[in-house]
Amino acid sequence: MALKTVEEYKASLQKLRPNIHKFGELITDVTTHPATKWTVEGHSQIYAAAQDPKLRDVVTTKSHLTGEPISRYLSIITSMEDQVANSKMKREIFHLTGTCTGGRCAGFTAINAMWSVTYEIDQAKGTDYHERLKAWLIDAQARDICVAGALTDAKGDRTKGPTEQADPDMFLHIKEVRDDGIVVRGAKVMICGIAAANEIFVLPGSAYREGEADYAISFALPKDTDGLIIVETRHPNDSREMEDCCSFDTPVKQGGITQAYLFFEDVFVPKDRVFMCREHEFTLNAITYFTLPYRSAIGGCVAGQGDVMTGAAMLVARANGLADKVFRDKIVEMAINNETTFSVGLAAAVMGKKHPSGAWICDPLIANVNKVHVARLPYQTKVLAQDISGGIAETGCMPSYIDFMDKELGPLIQKYMKAATDAETRARAARLVEWLTIGGGVPGCMHGGGSPDGAKLMINRAYPLQSYVEMARRLAGIEKELPDPGKVKK
Amino acid sequence: MALKTVEEYKASLQKLRPNIHKFGELITDVTTHPATKWTVEGHSQIYAAAQDPKLRDVVTTKSHLTGEPISRYLSIITSMEDQVANSKMKREIFHLTGTCTGGRCAGFTAINAMWSVTYEIDQAKGTDYHERLKAWLIDAQARDICVAGALTDAKGDRTKGPTEQADPDMFLHIKEVRDDGIVVRGAKVMICGIAAANEIFVLPGSAYREGEADYAISFALPKDTDGLIIVETRHPNDSREMEDCCSFDTPVKQGGITQAYLFFEDVFVPKDRVFMCREHEFTLNAITYFTLPYRSAIGGCVAGQGDVMTGAAMLVARANGLADKVFRDKIVEMAINNETTFSVGLAAAVMGKKHPSGAWICDPLIANVNKVHVARLPYQTKVLAQDISGGIAETGCMPSYIDFMDKELGPLIQKYMKAATDAETRARAARLVEWLTIGGGVPGCMHGGGSPDGAKLMINRAYPLQSYVEMARRLAGIEKELPDPGKVKK
Amino acid sequence: MALKTVEEYKASLQKLRPNIHKFGELITDVTTHPATKWTVEGHSQIYAAAQDPKLRDVVTTKSHLTGEPISRYLSIITSMEDQVANSKMKREIFHLTGTCTGGRCAGFTAINAMWSVTYEIDQAKGTDYHERLKAWLIDAQARDICVAGALTDAKGDRTKGPTEQADPDMFLHIKEVRDDGIVVRGAKVMICGIAAANEIFVLPGSAYREGEADYAISFALPKDTDGLIIVETRHPNDSREMEDCCSFDTPVKQGGITQAYLFFEDVFVPKDRVFMCREHEFTLNAITYFTLPYRSAIGGCVAGQGDVMTGAAMLVARANGLADKVFRDKIVEMAINNETTFSVGLAAAVMGKKHPSGAWICDPLIANVNKVHVARLPYQTKVLAQDISGGIAETGCMPSYIDFMDKELGPLIQKYMKAATDAETRARAARLVEWLTIGGGVPGCMHGGGSPDGAKLMINRAYPLQSYVEMARRLAGIEKELPDPGKVKK
Amino acid sequence: MALKTVEEYKASLQKLRPNIHKFGELITDVTTHPATKWTVEGHSQIYAAAQDPKLRDVVTTKSHLTGEPISRYLSIITSMEDQVANSKMKREIFHLTGTCTGGRCAGFTAINAMWSVTYEIDQAKGTDYHERLKAWLIDAQARDICVAGALTDAKGDRTKGPTEQADPDMFLHIKEVRDDGIVVRGAKVMICGIAAANEIFVLPGSAYREGEADYAISFALPKDTDGLIIVETRHPNDSREMEDCCSFDTPVKQGGITQAYLFFEDVFVPKDRVFMCREHEFTLNAITYFTLPYRSAIGGCVAGQGDVMTGAAMLVARANGLADKVFRDKIVEMAINNETTFSVGLAAAVMGKKHPSGAWICDPLIANVNKVHVARLPYQTKVLAQDISGGIAETGCMPSYIDFMDKELGPLIQKYMKAATDAETRARAARLVEWLTIGGGVPGCMHGGGSPDGAKLMINRAYPLQSYVEMARRLAGIEKELPDPGKVKK
Repeated sequence: MALKTVEEYKASLQKLRPNIHKFGELITDVTTHPATKWTVEGHSQIYAAAQDPKLRDVVTTKSHLTGEPISRYLSIITSMEDQVANSKMKREIFHLTGTCTGGRCAGFTAINAMWSVTYEIDQAKGTDYHERLKAWLIDAQARDICVAGALTDAKGDRTKGPTEQADPDMFLHIKEVRDDGIVVRGAKVMICGIAAANEIFVLPGSAYREGEADYAISFALPKDTDGLIIVETRHPNDSREMEDCCSFDTPVKQGGITQAYLFFEDVFVPKDRVFMCREHEFTLNAITYFTLPYRSAIGGCVAGQGDVMTGAAMLVARANGLADKVFRDKIVEMAINNETTFSVGLAAAVMGKKHPSGAWICDPLIANVNKVHVARLPYQTKVLAQDISGGIAETGCMPSYIDFMDKELGPLIQKYMKAATDAETRARAARLVEWLTIGGGVPGCMHGGGSPDGAKLMINRAYPLQSYVEMARRLAGIEKELPDPGKVKK
Repeated sequence: MALKTVEEYKASLQKLRPNIHKFGELITDVTTHPATKWTVEGHSQIYAAAQDPKLRDVVTTKSHLTGEPISRYLSIITSMEDQVANSKMKREIFHLTGTCTGGRCAGFTAINAMWSVTYEIDQAKGTDYHERLKAWLIDAQARDICVAGALTDAKGDRTKGPTEQADPDMFLHIKEVRDDGIVVRGAKVMICGIAAANEIFVLPGSAYREGEADYAISFALPKDTDGLIIVETRHPNDSREMEDCCSFDTPVKQGGITQAYLFFEDVFVPKDRVFMCREHEFTLNAITYFTLPYRSAIGGCVAGQGDVMTGAAMLVARANGLADKVFRDKIVEMAINNETTFSVGLAAAVMGKKHPSGAWICDPLIANVNKVHVARLPYQTKVLAQDISGGIAETGCMPSYIDFMDKELGPLIQKYMKAATDAETRARAARLVEWLTIGGGVPGCMHGGGSPDGAKLMINRAYPLQSYVEMARRLAGIEKELPDPGKVKK
Repeated sequence: MALKTVEEYKASLQKLRPNIHKFGELITDVTTHPATKWTVEGHSQIYAAAQDPKLRDVVTTKSHLTGEPISRYLSIITSMEDQVANSKMKREIFHLTGTCTGGRCAGFTAINAMWSVTYEIDQAKGTDYHERLKAWLIDAQARDICVAGALTDAKGDRTKGPTEQADPDMFLHIKEVRDDGIVVRGAKVMICGIAAANEIFVLPGSAYREGEADYAISFALPKDTDGLIIVETRHPNDSREMEDCCSFDTPVKQGGITQAYLFFEDVFVPKDRVFMCREHEFTLNAITYFTLPYRSAIGGCVAGQGDVMTGAAMLVARANGLADKVFRDKIVEMAINNETTFSVGLAAAVMGKKHPSGAWICDPLIANVNKVHVARLPYQTKVLAQDISGGIAETGCMPSYIDFMDKELGPLIQKYMKAATDAETRARAARLVEWLTIGGGVPGCMHGGGSPDGAKLMINRAYPLQSYVEMARRLAGIEKELPDPGKVKK
Repeated sequence: MALKTVEEYKASLQKLRPNIHKFGELITDVTTHPATKWTVEGHSQIYAAAQDPKLRDVVTTKSHLTGEPISRYLSIITSMEDQVANSKMKREIFHLTGTCTGGRCAGFTAINAMWSVTYEIDQAKGTDYHERLKAWLIDAQARDICVAGALTDAKGDRTKGPTEQADPDMFLHIKEVRDDGIVVRGAKVMICGIAAANEIFVLPGSAYREGEADYAISFALPKDTDGLIIVETRHPNDSREMEDCCSFDTPVKQGGITQAYLFFEDVFVPKDRVFMCREHEFTLNAITYFTLPYRSAIGGCVAGQGDVMTGAAMLVARANGLADKVFRDKIVEMAINNETTFSVGLAAAVMGKKHPSGAWICDPLIANVNKVHVARLPYQTKVLAQDISGGIAETGCMPSYIDFMDKELGPLIQKYMKAATDAETRARAARLVEWLTIGGGVPGCMHGGGSPDGAKLMINRAYPLQSYVEMARRLAGIEKELPDPGKVKK
């Protein structure tokens, strides 16, 4: 089966049983409902790019399993070059959609994480998870489906483990193991791009210990599986998306963000779609193999976001009549921020190594350094974008589209909003900056793919401090050993 | 007449002719319409505070004109102590309302600016502006009115002055001078708190040169003056304010922000309300005397905003079950940011000096340094607040109030949103962080009261670089003078 | 007795018994020995300023005890105005000397700390320390002596208290209490400006607990007291100070830094010079009352340091032929840094309060915020200074004075070092930047007056977080209380 | 001829005619004179590494010209992998020497720059520079010589070009072209590692225009060439290096920095050593091809410097008795800084492309972003190192080695300097931090390889702003084109 066209992709979504809710309503068609259609449009552009000779090589590759052309989002990353291509794709897609297409990234990364983890489990336990995953993946590639990834559990009291919670459902878990599959219960929350996905790839959200085996699960399911109830969350300015779809108060029609809560009410998962079942000792690696390529490639997303913010801010400046050179220093700082997250991601790829399963494992120290940058630099870029764009962009301080178009008020508003260009051009540019910096286009960079504090823990673990202490000791001519006093028994 | 109660204040607003529009609608009662009532509630708290023994001294003072107790917002700042009290009041009011009560700050500051400017004009030109202003002010104090301030013009092409614009209305200007007053035309845009104001105090938005005298105007007018058309702008998540008023998706009911475009369609201003009329050579001082106390005291606002963000972030953390000490370093950084803007504002007061009119003029170097801090530090504090609060707060990633309360979905949502506390408490806390950092409570710190780049120009002018070069020259033992090569004719 | 002239001051130093060592040598005259004379020159300028009509009011005040004119460094700070004057003096003195005159600041502050502490001890215990201090102070004012302050103990293993150390001398302590005084043993280390001081005022270096009473001591002693052995430490480029005194490789002749180790080998302190003796419960206050004015006023020093760095960097730029405006953004950032530490210090004064002893106690939150700034901002200013000045200043990358003056090499060096000015002017300017940023003029901003981490602990304690959580709770409409989970017993 | 041993390397330096001066003295043996021996020791370690099986692959590679094993510093970088290896080598060498071994980096990079430039000139002009360079390089590889690079001219008045200077020698230039070579005159200043070099590779220091052809020169010369006079500059604490060589006041004996002024007093360069002669139109590329690999690989140096600073700071902390975990956050920030410069350098390699000459050209945008990081991040790391290490390290505030070892004072000093370890260990650790952050080990990161402002100019040129504006325009649905008003003729 060939790569899907946009129409085929949308049709595949329309075929699914409706089970997504927002604002008290069951959404019957995600491709047309205002709460979900913008994210579907965003994901559609990836399908369109696969058909576009100029972009095809960015978003597709050859399956290392079948040799067929496939979506890069359904590929296994087997080399440094693949991971570099991943970063470049993320940056390009942000350019096209103006925002996150999260229904693909996390799924892509989850597949890759489980590629290595199933290999490891099978090696250790004689199971056949890797073959199951391979079979599912070949099929998914052939169907060219959009796969979202789901990790984050509800978690309840953050100081307690899954078995210590008053409510045992705070982490998704096995309720029953049957011969033909498993029944799972719990929730995955804040899951990106579900509305645009055909299937959902589930991963453990934490590293589990002995006694927590029931929480060690991974599987893939069609989005419309029985028992799965989905509620879309709010995001900044999401009510505006419910307004007239011509309104440029939500300026971007090529992309949008959705994040959902998934409630698994005793959902059955057929055996051949189960990729981990109670092997708690491999959950840490599942998390690790997920975060490494994710935190590397997210540098590309964030760079793309920054590129668009830079362009958008300069649109407003030009609309105001101000020359680019007025903002040279600010543009340079934005460029530095953008290239830094992109670059650190590439370096994590360069310093990576091959896993026995064939997957490429990014460098843990550098990948986590990038997560910290991703939780800092885009915020600085946003501030610069608002600084350049002035008061109207900072909080979108302009009359509404309705008033802008009003028969009586409209002419007045347009008279006074014009600058070095007409009022609508200026308003659209400023709304884009608002959308990117404090509106519907803002993705969750800080906590997406894990918190910066979590990344710092990993940096602390990965940084070879002791060897640097030894180097310093040699240089200082100190013969006596100086172990960490925190680790010396007194 | 005594200080108004909240009821009297609201009644005074209801008495005004409706002339505010939003979403194609004329708002007939600003105290109850969802687009304006939250800002009215915010300003009401200042009236309530004046009646509250614990807060009275914060928000009131003794008129230096009449000796009567008056709102501090209608007072002349005549000493360092007054300016310090101004900063403290701003911080306190932010604590009470959670956001900006901009319908009073800019008005308060505009009155003070014109206090000195009218004095100077009268001294130079033998006019009677100062007496007019004094008469108006005594009356305003007696009526205890809420006065908004309006500076920013539409401005058109930013590289051109008012007379060079294709459209002469891009800056508010005199259309006609009559014996009994003047007729003005143009617009003031992005004006804060208009919905909550009784009157509007207008100031020149720029320093004008010869040939631009028609733009040099200052006056005060009732908000419902004939010919004045007002359109409220959008702000982040403003559509949510139109939803069910019980919904905690807009969590704060004690305050809110509005910013309006004011269209002066040939508006008549009676002579006794005109405080500047074509004296272009005093417009620079009008701007300067406005920015100095404004940029000093805004450090108090921003500190108050930071205090609330710190408290809100820790609410979420506690709801998640996490101890305060986990976030100690982040809290300390937030505290540093908060105390810095507050402190630099106080220092601008300390280093100020007395104007012949009796007003206290804050130090220009330090006041402008504070403006730059105010355009930087609260953004860092927001990032820290989002960092502490986690993914749900970062972009408000939770189901809507409607779904939260839904008969079928509600129980599921609440089951999975509970943590170390119940779901509603946690949701309210997270919504507060969203509201403060990426929602309806975000004020325009960056450009409010002028842009940071403008402040940097003033810093460059005020910093006595040449004397520091001389100090360095003496220390280095250099006898030869080293003038700025940029100023040496070759 | 009147304020001392420079000559009288130097003579008073020459009269003291030599007990200072450096490089294996006993320094017989601190006013002429190259290791100490620059710091004496720096302190001399304070004496000169007291005689200078333009500077007199900066460095002198009226004794609140005698009404006589005295050095401000020997005054009690009894009001906000006094503390503001303290900040201004610090900034001015840095301008004059280019560096720290630490032989006066710590002493001044120590006297003030003990002013309140002795008052408290006497109130609580019926002792007469306050009267002793007053008597000593009146005498010190009359003699117009230079008093250094000494707090920091050797401390040994940082994880252990004084009584837990293998060596009991790691903290200065009482060895014997006699009728006529006490005998003390131990060391004070890294003490600034000892070489320029007549007397040393000693304070406890830590807050001591029960069982540690022997370490709770405060007293003042002439520098040449029997049993006191002093060794000067190295500092950056201190060897250059031993070179030809004409050499501009050490460019500044108006000031210099020394820091010493003081070894108290069973030193006797007469009773009337003892201000605390075993009252451990007051040591915390001694530290606190020291750090508050110190950390406030140090903002003035650091601002002065920054002013000189700004001036010095621009000297090099001008010598290179570059116009001031090329560096406008960097100058503005330096100005912001300088005014920030100055301002936060002033604010700590403004928000201070009166102690029953009459002393003015600066605000603890703001004073400690300033300590953190002081450990950050001057480093940024240094980087900017090096950035502006170019490679020759960054590490002082120029041939030595000897080579510069060499008959054969000199002409070549001077030919190629000239720029828009002659080589010597350019070299002197660049050496000044080197001296200020990576040479002999660099003071210990980071740890002087305590570490930034210590200040953060105080900020955490002083910031009223709980009240801000309560504000946030009210704004969010949360009824349930949310105490810190870290303090809740489960 | 094989790779040289350390002994052979030192012997080759001793054979050169003495022409280096410092402190008025002609240095007869650079391998033993205290002003130069530490830098020779540093460079020796590279020779030692080439003989060490564990390090051999780091510092050597196979000549792409002869297939023989050669020093990587004499190789042509022909692939991304070569450039990555360059970064790794730089980091490793910093670990070994604790500082810069600048006598090799700039030379290595200059050879690579001219590899492509000579190719381009020959293609355009039919010259034979590329063959000359190849012949020289094969010979240099065979002799395994240490080649320093020299770019920076004296420059005189920075606002004037070479022909506008009052003194025509402000930029190195051709004085005479002969049949057998050229005679050059002028100076190269602040040249790193000359003392440790056998030969010097000269490059144009600026991009020259028509009329400035005499300044367009490149060549390689033995260091002891007739007419070349060398004066070593001072650097922080360089006088200490003249003290007793056992003294740990200069703690590191495995490396050191020298920077020299080279005076070319009518120096003859034989034709086969001339690689550019008046081809001014290629000077921009010479600069560019130099800066790209240099600014990429310097991320490795700076990371290595940061690693050592991290290790050194923790040495002091451990000596003080403090556990590593106390400083976890600071170590993580240092790690982030270190990995960032390293990573951005690697990314510049990844995003590079092949030059027709076979050389690998790093990405100009990313390489220049790295230069800006290199001018910022190590300064932050230094501050963190001083923060962790406390007051003694900040300015090296400890008695001198002489006093430390003094018969009478030594025991007192050592008694009071001991902490959780003995005094000497603690002093050596603290001296290392001093040396790295404010002493002899500080390299010129800010301006080495060009200034950060220069890099920002390149970033501004390389960042594809216009294409990002176009993306933003498409996303905002703006049809009208918005060109840069600064480039529109009105």
